[in-house]
Amino acid sequence: MNFNDKLRRIQRKNNSLLCIGLDTETSRVPESLFRWGDPQYEFNRKIIDATKDLVCAYKLNISFYESVGEHGWYTVHQTLARIPEEIVTIGDGKRGDIRNSAEKQAHLFCEDWEFAASTVNPYMGYDAVEPFTRRKDQCAFVLAVTSNTGSKDFQHLRVRGRPLYEHVIGAAKKWNRRNNIGLVVGATRSAELKRIRALAPEMPLLIPGIGAQKGDLASTVRYGCDKKGEMAVINVGRSIIYASGGDDFAEKARLVAITYRDLINSYREKYFG
Amino acid sequence: MNFNDKLRRIQRKNNSLLCIGLDTETSRVPESLFRWGDPQYEFNRKIIDATKDLVCAYKLNISFYESVGEHGWYTVHQTLARIPEEIVTIGDGKRGDIRNSAEKQAHLFCEDWEFAASTVNPYMGYDAVEPFTRRKDQCAFVLAVTSNTGSKDFQHLRVRGRPLYEHVIGAAKKWNRRNNIGLVVGATRSAELKRIRALAPEMPLLIPGIGAQKGDLASTVRYGCDKKGEMAVINVGRSIIYASGGDDFAEKARLVAITYRDLINSYREKYFG
Repeated sequence: MNFNDKLRRIQRKNNSLLCIGLDTETSRVPESLFRWGDPQYEFNRKIIDATKDLVCAYKLNISFYESVGEHGWYTVHQTLARIPEEIVTIGDGKRGDIRNSAEKQAHLFCEDWEFAASTVNPYMGYDAVEPFTRRKDQCAFVLAVTSNTGSKDFQHLRVRGRPLYEHVIGAAKKWNRRNNIGLVVGATRSAELKRIRALAPEMPLLIPGIGAQKGDLASTVRYGCDKKGEMAVINVGRSIIYASGGDDFAEKARLVAITYRDLINSYREKYFG
Repeated sequence: MNFNDKLRRIQRKNNSLLCIGLDTETSRVPESLFRWGDPQYEFNRKIIDATKDLVCAYKLNISFYESVGEHGWYTVHQTLARIPEEIVTIGDGKRGDIRNSAEKQAHLFCEDWEFAASTVNPYMGYDAVEPFTRRKDQCAFVLAVTSNTGSKDFQHLRVRGRPLYEHVIGAAKKWNRRNNIGLVVGATRSAELKRIRALAPEMPLLIPGIGAQKGDLASTVRYGCDKKGEMAVINVGRSIIYASGGDDFAEKARLVAITYRDLINSYREKYFG
């Protein structure tokens, strides 16, 4: 099945555009999990088991795993093995390099870990991205606009009257021969998001910046979805997984995830119903 | 000691601007090394022992290590432990992310592996780079112009009459409060390199693209060095480490490294002597 069909199918089945960001820090994992050999995995396992009927995707920011030491590589594997096959998994590594190095990166993300999608940085151009697009059941989400303050440094520079990120979007559309490229669009300004969705009416958009980063959810849904009210993947991380710091973290995560899913769905009803 | 002093000191001591790229692929390691538990490390160890008096730096492209599995993380550690303290080590990961993720990335590169320098991707702006610049004995090499074909896709777009990468260089200079930022400049066009060195007369420049990628060495030395004929770090990878596919790989690597070092020094003599 190609990636876009897989995404649409799980969004319909679970009636959810919510993606949970498993940016799990060992320092924020409840003490009781340290009885286990891999508390980071135990935390993820409980979050996944408590929320897998509420989401379309899980996103793992790889920096939270590679920074814990060699075991992190294996924790990614274990976490992915716990996620039901029908749910989209996103390896958020923001990689990109000259071809022979990008091939290695793509091998790790697409063949070894076997994420359904990976985030890639466009600065080095097409040959840095291409290895992540070889399987049509896997998606490369190209960074367009990010949600951090530094996004202003270059992404908004005007090139022939349009911001740089619109040139990135234009290139991503040109690169999209296998119909498996998406865009990362930080939930910051609704006017931008509206314009981006107009430029790429059918691409999946991965939208971080909701929750701890305080993006506006109503306009994210209104302008981030395709015309069917789908194909936006709305990532919420810390405000779900750290909803409670105690042993009830998974139950509390479920409650907050339900709140986000339902709020998103109420806006879908309003704007696409 | 701050990073620039460390670099200058080893360039003088070893009379060399050569950096060897340890982009070691297990598939290209001689069969005899498979007797050992970690053939990738054994390969690196022998290359380092055979060339450590000939270089100013070793660069490890992390994709070659993370793609082999969890052991790769440890192979990086072991390889770094084999490199004499006075030689610059460069963690080529091209990372960069929103602040809390970039902190994790920097923790891995700067505190755990403890590379003397790391490469970073500027697309996400200052907060993606800043965590890599906290220690003044460590350098962040910001990607400006790369040596791959995709470098044309965005890096050369004109922004207010100047290519995007010049805006990256301008920003890098502004960010350089701790005097520990450098630039990655692919050895592609001598006119560009000349202009870049004029824009950043004192920054260390990491210059890949020599050797297998066939950049022009004479103009790389002429325009890449500072006015003292130093502060260019000229990376050669595959054409040194794979000079021979047999058990004499380390000896042959030494011979090719001497050739590069001497050729570079002959151009230094010619242009700065």
